[in-house]
Amino acid sequence: MNILVTNDDGLFAPGLRALVEALLPLGTVWVVAPEREQSAAGHAITLHKPLRMDPVQLNGLGVEAYSSNGTPADCVILGCLTAATRPDLVVSGINKGANLGEEVLYSGTVSAAMEAALQGLRAMAVSICSYDTEDFSAPARAAVLLAGPVLEAVLPDDCFLNVNVPAVPWNELTGVEITHLGRRAYINAVDRREDPRGRPYYWFTGEPRESRSGAGTDIGAVNAGRVSITPVHFDLTSHETGPRLEEAARVLNEGIGPR
Amino acid sequence: MNILVTNDDGLFAPGLRALVEALLPLGTVWVVAPEREQSAAGHAITLHKPLRMDPVQLNGLGVEAYSSNGTPADCVILGCLTAATRPDLVVSGINKGANLGEEVLYSGTVSAAMEAALQGLRAMAVSICSYDTEDFSAPARAAVLLAGPVLEAVLPDDCFLNVNVPAVPWNELTGVEITHLGRRAYINAVDRREDPRGRPYYWFTGEPRESRSGAGTDIGAVNAGRVSITPVHFDLTSHETGPRLEEAARVLNEGIGPR
Repeated sequence: MNILVTNDDGLFAPGLRALVEALLPLGTVWVVAPEREQSAAGHAITLHKPLRMDPVQLNGLGVEAYSSNGTPADCVILGCLTAATRPDLVVSGINKGANLGEEVLYSGTVSAAMEAALQGLRAMAVSICSYDTEDFSAPARAAVLLAGPVLEAVLPDDCFLNVNVPAVPWNELTGVEITHLGRRAYINAVDRREDPRGRPYYWFTGEPRESRSGAGTDIGAVNAGRVSITPVHFDLTSHETGPRLEEAARVLNEGIGPR
Repeated sequence: MNILVTNDDGLFAPGLRALVEALLPLGTVWVVAPEREQSAAGHAITLHKPLRMDPVQLNGLGVEAYSSNGTPADCVILGCLTAATRPDLVVSGINKGANLGEEVLYSGTVSAAMEAALQGLRAMAVSICSYDTEDFSAPARAAVLLAGPVLEAVLPDDCFLNVNVPAVPWNELTGVEITHLGRRAYINAVDRREDPRGRPYYWFTGEPRESRSGAGTDIGAVNAGRVSITPVHFDLTSHETGPRLEEAARVLNEGIGPR
């Protein structure tokens, strides 16, 4: 099995190292990851500047590894298009901090897995639900156990997995749940300050409000101590909404006039 | 009607100016837009550096306007959280170049409308299907005609519209279609070069391959000369995939062991 690993916390993040170490027994692992932290990078692709992909040593791991000035999604494209063999699996993480609900829209970790799915590859994003743990053993073990079934599962082409693991030791996990994305509205405040020259500047702030975290959601699952596995796709069409737009289409069609 | 306008081509892009001019008769228009081009910025939110939002003049338009060093999504948050009144409608564009199929995942234009929907606002992204037109009159007129019905339509909370207008004069449009997102796989090649010191660098390249552009898709509609209106949401859950993951969940549950 050829496994490409990336993340958004940067090449030297301990979560990436733990993931690589855990996946090594499964096959050939190589790494293309951002040279520095790229959290909240979203699904950005770098079209307007040249990208670097420089070989680096990950001490003691003995895997091929590259540092890039690009985003996590860039790293996946670089990894796929420059390697001799396409990866069988792309794993992004282990991210420090959960990626739940609409955080998947902002998350560099998740965007890397989404880019892999766009490239037609099997992929998962793996996160641990804490910003200040140094113990990545539970999510690393989850990634290893999932790798086989994910390769074998009959998934739609446009689908990948978003995996969130509570920050507890493995034997304190209470189970696994296949979930749907909940909703955490945050970034709901802005802090206005003034620089030494009196010009204003702004910091985003606000706390997550778990506005949709009930049964079946990813948020509910991790709150209950379970590993959350959400199948995520990239078809953003709101299929059920089409019929409600008939009036808008009619107005516009009238504006255009008869053909 | 209070209308917030943003884009990803930058505050002084002619497409934004055409949009503001067209929307002015509908109510109060104000602008918060990136100071420079942000194409393919994805849905990035700036958490790690302070943001600027400096007042600027848009010659002759007489609207409140701000230039920001942030992404299009940042601009929407700044616009919503710093204004005295919440916008009734957020319009992003007019983007030079179509935003079709999975381009919505990369598009700064679309991410601005998505952020507005996340903030609970009505929103649409408007693009013209050409990179080298200077005539934005057709998409501007479409935006104006849509504004009313979009405000009145019974849309789900998490839904906004992605509007693409063929680059032809208004009277050459062949109609309007409510569509779903097609698929254009591109960024499928990388150009490796060497800098003057012999170190490699990379440019992404590749041409769009319209791999899902048939009846009902946004790509098919604009190819037929029609205005495409796609309802887009931000629930990325692949709801139909859950049952196919039972084996993966079982393996992981077995790994965790009985509770």
